[in-house]
Amino acid sequence: MSTLDSIISDLVVANRILAREDVVDAYGHVSVRNPDKPRHFFLSRSVSPELVERDDIVELGLDGQPVREEKRALYLERFIHAAIFDARPDIQAVVHAHAEDILPFGIAPATRLRPVIHSGSFIGSNVPVWDIADKFGDTNLLVANIDQGRDLAKCLGQSNVALMRGHGFASAGRSLIEVVRMSIYLPRNARALLRAKQLGGEIKYLSQGEIDARNRGYSPYSTETWRAWEYWANKAGCSHMLTKPDAHGHDHKK
Amino acid sequence: MSTLDSIISDLVVANRILAREDVVDAYGHVSVRNPDKPRHFFLSRSVSPELVERDDIVELGLDGQPVREEKRALYLERFIHAAIFDARPDIQAVVHAHAEDILPFGIAPATRLRPVIHSGSFIGSNVPVWDIADKFGDTNLLVANIDQGRDLAKCLGQSNVALMRGHGFASAGRSLIEVVRMSIYLPRNARALLRAKQLGGEIKYLSQGEIDARNRGYSPYSTETWRAWEYWANKAGCSHMLTKPDAHGHDHKK
Amino acid sequence: MSTLDSIISDLVVANRILAREDVVDAYGHVSVRNPDKPRHFFLSRSVSPELVERDDIVELGLDGQPVREEKRALYLERFIHAAIFDARPDIQAVVHAHAEDILPFGIAPATRLRPVIHSGSFIGSNVPVWDIADKFGDTNLLVANIDQGRDLAKCLGQSNVALMRGHGFASAGRSLIEVVRMSIYLPRNARALLRAKQLGGEIKYLSQGEIDARNRGYSPYSTETWRAWEYWANKAGCSHMLTKPDAHGHDHKK
Amino acid sequence: MSTLDSIISDLVVANRILAREDVVDAYGHVSVRNPDKPRHFFLSRSVSPELVERDDIVELGLDGQPVREEKRALYLERFIHAAIFDARPDIQAVVHAHAEDILPFGIAPATRLRPVIHSGSFIGSNVPVWDIADKFGDTNLLVANIDQGRDLAKCLGQSNVALMRGHGFASAGRSLIEVVRMSIYLPRNARALLRAKQLGGEIKYLSQGEIDARNRGYSPYSTETWRAWEYWANKAGCSHMLTKPDAHGHDHKK
Repeated sequence: MSTLDSIISDLVVANRILAREDVVDAYGHVSVRNPDKPRHFFLSRSVSPELVERDDIVELGLDGQPVREEKRALYLERFIHAAIFDARPDIQAVVHAHAEDILPFGIAPATRLRPVIHSGSFIGSNVPVWDIADKFGDTNLLVANIDQGRDLAKCLGQSNVALMRGHGFASAGRSLIEVVRMSIYLPRNARALLRAKQLGGEIKYLSQGEIDARNRGYSPYSTETWRAWEYWANKAGCSHMLTKPDAHGHDHKK
Repeated sequence: MSTLDSIISDLVVANRILAREDVVDAYGHVSVRNPDKPRHFFLSRSVSPELVERDDIVELGLDGQPVREEKRALYLERFIHAAIFDARPDIQAVVHAHAEDILPFGIAPATRLRPVIHSGSFIGSNVPVWDIADKFGDTNLLVANIDQGRDLAKCLGQSNVALMRGHGFASAGRSLIEVVRMSIYLPRNARALLRAKQLGGEIKYLSQGEIDARNRGYSPYSTETWRAWEYWANKAGCSHMLTKPDAHGHDHKK
Repeated sequence: MSTLDSIISDLVVANRILAREDVVDAYGHVSVRNPDKPRHFFLSRSVSPELVERDDIVELGLDGQPVREEKRALYLERFIHAAIFDARPDIQAVVHAHAEDILPFGIAPATRLRPVIHSGSFIGSNVPVWDIADKFGDTNLLVANIDQGRDLAKCLGQSNVALMRGHGFASAGRSLIEVVRMSIYLPRNARALLRAKQLGGEIKYLSQGEIDARNRGYSPYSTETWRAWEYWANKAGCSHMLTKPDAHGHDHKK
Repeated sequence: MSTLDSIISDLVVANRILAREDVVDAYGHVSVRNPDKPRHFFLSRSVSPELVERDDIVELGLDGQPVREEKRALYLERFIHAAIFDARPDIQAVVHAHAEDILPFGIAPATRLRPVIHSGSFIGSNVPVWDIADKFGDTNLLVANIDQGRDLAKCLGQSNVALMRGHGFASAGRSLIEVVRMSIYLPRNARALLRAKQLGGEIKYLSQGEIDARNRGYSPYSTETWRAWEYWANKAGCSHMLTKPDAHGHDHKK
């Protein structure tokens, strides 16, 4: 299997996993940069992530437009992905979703969402909240053009996750596996923090040193990272689509 | 497939979706107006929505009575639908349900349920709470006659959703797909608001301008609307029953 | 099918429904009085409700002992059932369970559990909390003999439900269907009240008149009651075991 | 089936149960001491608990290293198990997991997690919270060497459960069945306490006498204990792997 074939497969798996883990429902999407052409990225046409197949994957440019003629409808909010890939050359994969349990933190500005559990560390110590109304006034809240995407990307800055007020979040990772994992543990971290707040008293957040230590230990295909990917793919019924690069950088069908 | 056949199919699909999404359980129902005879509407006989088949669908008049002889038991609360269709010619479909997470807002009058997330915008800025006791005193809380239905419809007014104290809600949409979508995102909006309240501090609700902008963008068979309908039907195991009107207004089997 | 055969079938269905609806897990049980011998009742041997079969059903007396020689292990807490059937001739069926969402109300005595939703009305306006420690001091919290069962039955009095501090609840109904329905909606009512409390401000409980009106409308085999029973049995995968008495009081296989 | 074969089977079952009950996900693990060689214990190689098979089980020493040559990757945190087995000769089985609902109690130190429900009694009256930062400063929060494992075991002391700040918990039992049961009811006890706190007012915890009474009644293969094990194994789809020792101490295939 070529690298590109394997990336398309992984993107389909990522879609199915995010659906199975309730990060996305009919809405929400995940993209991955084309490693051969870093100013291109892959994203599904407009279809629910649970139903995405290889043929649904479309190649887009950093203006959010398809690089080949495409008659099928595209996601309205593809500009989120385009703008983040443009602003952040270090980023290889992006998720946008409406995962329910992060929503409260986007609409109750008095409480900042910060990592409190080790699996939540990758969201980073600064999770900005982007409010589309600040620059664009009354909209339908969708990121429907490249200007809006760029404003969101600017708010994201060098962070890994930005909450979007009344809407959802955008997360950016160094690999598809990382961004999926971050997007799954983000709502879990939000629930842990919400409930700790309900217990009351002081909250012990992860320290900056802990967040940094975890980040330094990151490896996209470590045994531990792969274990979760395999587990989620299995739950989502698509473990047969898994591909894993070997130690020499070649992909092979699992 | 004729338009009417297709509407009946859609109504069965709507029943199954609402059951799968925990909006209804053994109780709750969904109806659609007869496009050819606007003073008639379709509703299942008394059976759990999950189990509804085409043959269960009955045609009723705006007095809540069947238009043909019908020996099978009917829903006691069919008057909710009759009265709303009567009062609101703009409405094509109605849901009544007891979805658990909206119940707190019906019994804790100090907190108003308002849209806080973009998918909740269609509930509108004013969600009145109807208390059957205000006019009818001590009842079994069921809307069991046309007078009670009319009182509820009056409380609903020009809104899209009315909460029913200690009981559930009634929602009214411009299409079956819209009312189903609204009924699914209504509890999600309620949960987001409840949890934001738990975090404390100021809440950022959708502005009236945002609600209006989203409403203006509504289209009953847009790609985005259809995407959700297809997704939910698939989860509910009835995607084979989907019908989609083409651009010329003709229905065709998907 | 004889009446007794049909009662045994219904008891198996009740076990499976309560398991499917998360009212019981490995623990918890449901019993029904023998209509021919009112001082006898039927209860499964010691097995998880989800796994109960017809052959597991045992006939017990009001002392909690089997009326025939029985070598298989019995539920330790069968005395809950024996004592309630003894004290309450009006009661035909009993459930004991640990449903999670009622537990907070047993350990936080400042808040009384009361009906706030129409489907919760059958728990009645007075839901006493029984604390085994009040009379028996430090125990393992199980109702392990008839004295403890009688103390619980005394606390229950003429109510339909008693909470058991740090343990669960006992509910008593006029039929198997009623007690199952009550046991399913009891946790839902508890959740609605807990969340309304979180919203804050005044709570609108059902009035005594509303509770009475709903209670007067009770009919063990009404269309509405049967609809829920059929729905739950279907979800629990045992709709093929349903029996329904006809208008002449004869049972027939559905 | 030999005792050792049966222990390996039970360990596989324990893995699957903990996965099905959401105590573990891709991460978390369960171990059992080798009854013939008390300074050895069994643990899976690095694989998600849901996917563990007999061949994945590895035998480790109390230094956390495999007793035979092993090329497959091992769990990074196997030192948790090694250190607890070393410090606690009375303990036969250990679980480490990140079950979501205990996390708030590890990061909100003002509230102590204590038993409030009878099924939670086995966590004991003292559930210490271990903070890896107290001794090791800024780490990635993982227990990655034997020194860290020993520090955790020291904090655990004679208790049955220690919470790990921002991470999860470690639990220690007198048998595999006991530690699995404790690990399942630990989050349930946490939820009941959290919600009771939300209701407000005084909380009635289990008394020390009640905890002791329940502990005295413990028997690893009692009817009641076995009932739960069988129930969970059935839900996890591995009831065919159950083995149960007979009254003479021999194992037989169920």
